Amino acid sequence: MDTKKLVVGIDIGGTNTKFGMVDRIGNIYVEENISTSFYTDFDDYINALKDIIIKLEKDVEDAEIIGIGIGAPNGNHNTGTIAFAPNLPWSQILPIVAKLQKHFPSICIALDNDANAAAIGEMVYGGAAKMRDFLFVTLGTGVGSGFVANGEMIYGYDGFAGELGHVIIEKNGRKCGCGRCGCLETYTSASGIKRTVWELLSKSNEDSVFRHKSFDEFETKNIAEAAQNGDKIALEAFQITGEILGLALANAVAITVPEAIFLFGGVAKAGDLIFKPTITSFEKNVLKIWKNKIQILPSELQNKDVSILGSASLAWNAINKSSL
Amino acid sequence: MDTKKLVVGIDIGGTNTKFGMVDRIGNIYVEENISTSFYTDFDDYINALKDIIIKLEKDVEDAEIIGIGIGAPNGNHNTGTIAFAPNLPWSQILPIVAKLQKHFPSICIALDNDANAAAIGEMVYGGAAKMRDFLFVTLGTGVGSGFVANGEMIYGYDGFAGELGHVIIEKNGRKCGCGRCGCLETYTSASGIKRTVWELLSKSNEDSVFRHKSFDEFETKNIAEAAQNGDKIALEAFQITGEILGLALANAVAITVPEAIFLFGGVAKAGDLIFKPTITSFEKNVLKIWKNKIQILPSELQNKDVSILGSASLAWNAINKSSL
Repeated sequence: MDTKKLVVGIDIGGTNTKFGMVDRIGNIYVEENISTSFYTDFDDYINALKDIIIKLEKDVEDAEIIGIGIGAPNGNHNTGTIAFAPNLPWSQILPIVAKLQKHFPSICIALDNDANAAAIGEMVYGGAAKMRDFLFVTLGTGVGSGFVANGEMIYGYDGFAGELGHVIIEKNGRKCGCGRCGCLETYTSASGIKRTVWELLSKSNEDSVFRHKSFDEFETKNIAEAAQNGDKIALEAFQITGEILGLALANAVAITVPEAIFLFGGVAKAGDLIFKPTITSFEKNVLKIWKNKIQILPSELQNKDVSILGSASLAWNAINKSSL
Repeated sequence: MDTKKLVVGIDIGGTNTKFGMVDRIGNIYVEENISTSFYTDFDDYINALKDIIIKLEKDVEDAEIIGIGIGAPNGNHNTGTIAFAPNLPWSQILPIVAKLQKHFPSICIALDNDANAAAIGEMVYGGAAKMRDFLFVTLGTGVGSGFVANGEMIYGYDGFAGELGHVIIEKNGRKCGCGRCGCLETYTSASGIKRTVWELLSKSNEDSVFRHKSFDEFETKNIAEAAQNGDKIALEAFQITGEILGLALANAVAITVPEAIFLFGGVAKAGDLIFKPTITSFEKNVLKIWKNKIQILPSELQNKDVSILGSASLAWNAINKSSL
């Protein structure tokens, strides 16, 4: 019997590190989970990763690990390092690929940040499977993105390209965590849409369920629920968010012209509430030659385990490229 | 004696078509020129191109043509066609590569639009020679651009990517030739800076040489001359143009992170007048991780024959790729 050729997808979060053994078509065979924050020493953490990887290979009958994909905050594909990730217990530049490679010298290891991992997941396992040019946008706590052109992720000369969330969309606009003002992220992330609800409460006299809640008390899904119940402030917040996002996407399209744009994350889960005004604004703002030609679609990974699949896809993508 | 391996660079303009025999390092051996508008029939024009190409090969002793590069308005690299170019005498979709290929079946033929040809010229013959990620911006009659990522031009799924001039930089801004409002081109092209002079004349009471001229009477170089003579309106026009361009470049950098940005064309010829405010605005607006890391430079093709060299570079670039 042939061995099953699998890869390990590793998703490094501030609290937990998740592992999954995944095949080329996205079946997850076995999963594992360890605490990230438990390991104050980075070398101890590397040893723990190594032990889990060895264990996982034994857990699946006739399995052979041929790749390791790692998704991590601030993970840099070009250098194989994680640089100054604020939520991880180790604060310096971490050469994670080089350190793991010592334990697995003949296995292909690929690292990337979470947004790029999700984008490559869309390419390997999702709706972008046959596309050479697409854009993947995460509307979550922040706004992340992965631009794929000519079949390859655009990493830029330093490995940190694709920061659509930090395109300035509004001069002198809202203060952003990056220190500047008016970044797309301050309008179209989960907290961006909350800020819009708050702005609307200040501007209008309209009643709303949000007049009775504090800023800290509610999440994006509450805004979606309120909108579905007809709350006018919530409906207008989605409308405004979509208008801003549609313009930003129209501008991004002028640079890379993707075949499709995939939206992922908490805000994208609101479905038509966000897709309809986004598409309307996009079609209004995009250059004529691209009108009605570029689809804006929900990510096909939305309801799957994107952290494992995205990380695993990094390994498959690297294996595909090295076998060309 | 070895034959000289050369390519023909062909630059198709509305009035004239220019030809040059060019080697790998940018020496132009012989040039030729024909009227474009003379040929009302496209097949007659193709025959004229063929005859000139054959003649050029004979004109250079021991020469062998190994490639043909064509720069044309609306030239599409992906399809090898020129589509609906408003200034050319033939109005339909023109399969120029396929038609020429019939006459030269074993020669590599590459087509692109003017801005991309200039960008590839910068990569083959200019300052981007060792770069895999850079941005080339033409500030001329319009604003064109070529984004190179991972060593390859970003063409997008339809071949028309890289329209930085049609990124909307000002909501409800100036009317653009594309039908929309607020495109970068309406502020930072040659006519954009003229429009800014006119706006300033309407807003201020400051005296200026431009109070005595009509809009049609002066060119960008007049604004540069006036600024060098201390004309306050002209100086402020460059300041404002640089501020807008710097912001647009900072936003573009967040997507592709080039190693350098090359500025080319009439407005770029103004030197420090445009580079200083552009760089100041860029550094103010760019995300912190890229501050003082990305150079904004004059194109090294600025004072060379970019139409011939850009077109020729398309052929060398295609030859380089096919020999990988």
